[in-house]
Amino acid sequence: MPSEFELIGRYFTRPSRTAALGVGDDCALVRQPDGLALAITTDMLVESVHFFPDVDPESLGHKTLAVNLSDLAAMGAEPRWATLALALPAIDEVWVAAFARGLFALAEREGVELIGGDTTRGPLNLCMTLIGLSPTGLALRRDGACPGDDIWLSGATGEAALAVAHRRGTVLLEEADRVACTRRLEWPQPRTALGKALRGVASSAIDVSDGLVQDLGHICERSGVGAQLVAADLPRAAAVRHQGEAGLTALLAGGDDYELLFTAPPDLRDRVARIGLVCDVPVTRVGVIIPTPLVGEHARVTVLDERGGALALGATGFDHFA
Amino acid sequence: MPSEFELIGRYFTRPSRTAALGVGDDCALVRQPDGLALAITTDMLVESVHFFPDVDPESLGHKTLAVNLSDLAAMGAEPRWATLALALPAIDEVWVAAFARGLFALAEREGVELIGGDTTRGPLNLCMTLIGLSPTGLALRRDGACPGDDIWLSGATGEAALAVAHRRGTVLLEEADRVACTRRLEWPQPRTALGKALRGVASSAIDVSDGLVQDLGHICERSGVGAQLVAADLPRAAAVRHQGEAGLTALLAGGDDYELLFTAPPDLRDRVARIGLVCDVPVTRVGVIIPTPLVGEHARVTVLDERGGALALGATGFDHFA
Repeated sequence: MPSEFELIGRYFTRPSRTAALGVGDDCALVRQPDGLALAITTDMLVESVHFFPDVDPESLGHKTLAVNLSDLAAMGAEPRWATLALALPAIDEVWVAAFARGLFALAEREGVELIGGDTTRGPLNLCMTLIGLSPTGLALRRDGACPGDDIWLSGATGEAALAVAHRRGTVLLEEADRVACTRRLEWPQPRTALGKALRGVASSAIDVSDGLVQDLGHICERSGVGAQLVAADLPRAAAVRHQGEAGLTALLAGGDDYELLFTAPPDLRDRVARIGLVCDVPVTRVGVIIPTPLVGEHARVTVLDERGGALALGATGFDHFA
Repeated sequence: MPSEFELIGRYFTRPSRTAALGVGDDCALVRQPDGLALAITTDMLVESVHFFPDVDPESLGHKTLAVNLSDLAAMGAEPRWATLALALPAIDEVWVAAFARGLFALAEREGVELIGGDTTRGPLNLCMTLIGLSPTGLALRRDGACPGDDIWLSGATGEAALAVAHRRGTVLLEEADRVACTRRLEWPQPRTALGKALRGVASSAIDVSDGLVQDLGHICERSGVGAQLVAADLPRAAAVRHQGEAGLTALLAGGDDYELLFTAPPDLRDRVARIGLVCDVPVTRVGVIIPTPLVGEHARVTVLDERGGALALGATGFDHFA
């Protein structure tokens, strides 16, 4: 069995391209170009919380990086350097090799360099920190939404949550839907190009990872505004349409979507639509930012049904401890 | 019970001092002064691997940051920004409050700002990424040791490992020794000031976290040299002296020491000694760098006994999977 150090050398060490010093010292060393801010994000994935124990390790390697890329995309930042800490119950070289394959395939596509990390024994846990670059003052923050701004969504939400629900037996998906939903759950595609193209256009942005309504609530809270979503305008994948009420719940509150939810002034509608075309990502106008409602925090986001009334929302997002 | 978001807001959110954007968005944003490189390190601490389940949470908060600070110290870098991902089996607010107290007390002392992170349910796991600043070209790397260089050690090694051995029942410490060793295990003091003072003086450096001989081996491997330690010159704490053979093993191979092991040309001996005085850290000359031995990798480091013969070394350091 390889040692901890052989494991790092064999599967997680590639020649440095942009780093002054990569894997193998106490720290990695990198230089940041002038005029750019660093955007930094961290995500931790835990077995049986964020993925099933029998997950394809190649997809898990992809997803570990993808969920962090999604956070950078939501800032409009360009991904650059990553560190990876992983706790493994034991060394399974086939598993580790597949995990590294999935990770590095996406890293190469996105121009990310793995510059350091940590390896230890323990319950399976992947923790990545990703650093990107953002032109000073152009980061897409959560706190810039204004009343009257359109609310936009990339792609569509709900499929990943339906894949989890199917696996847990709480919904039953047809085979074609199951395949589509599982693909969305296991191989999320970060919206890096869209995020960068929205610099100077979007007034605020967030990535949808904890549920559409809850994540929109974060924008509202930070911006001091409210939001109205129009249920009929929300894009629906086939599986979501087929599942009726469960589909709507997944759409609004499922989580694990890794789409971008962003706001922009109405006079930039054409520009946003064109950016979607250029980036080859569907973008849909799904609602409008309104002044802060006065009825308490939980009503910041309203979802209007086809008659213009407010949908009764139950649990609207993911809380790891709920 | 507080939600994930309330937990972050209550215990892990402080006003930003140096960050353009701290906790609460998709990414943190920071600006790096010109002329400095970024030094980046990540460490993951797992329950029952790196700490006992009943560890004082305040000391664990301290240690989570301290072990990362130690990596920056070994590069001579100045600590600046940290992210923290933590997996908790459940929310125990008393535990979390104590953990945060230990973390922020050290963070304030060392000028570190917590700028982001992640919180999730899962087997207890703390993963921190720490970013520091290093004047370009002055980082203390592992690959600069030259034959003839002195080998220096800050403080002394072995006590933390004896605390673990006592707890596991493989050695029996007197009460005064137990207290001293447990303090070293639970409240390691990073050598930040020493590391910074050694810029331009030390030819290589590493922090001793996996055992003295093994970590010296990393310097030798990266520098393409060998090393001779003189057993009689190695500083010994009282508990190490009292434990005879077990003490020597802990000294050479124990791990969890967080001391700096570094090399410097012999003509800088006075300068190194003076730096130790200024920084109020004992520094001891413990050996010499030699040309690469030709007898295979495991003999890169030799420990000489009082007769000048080589000590037979068994396991010489910590491998999380061994």
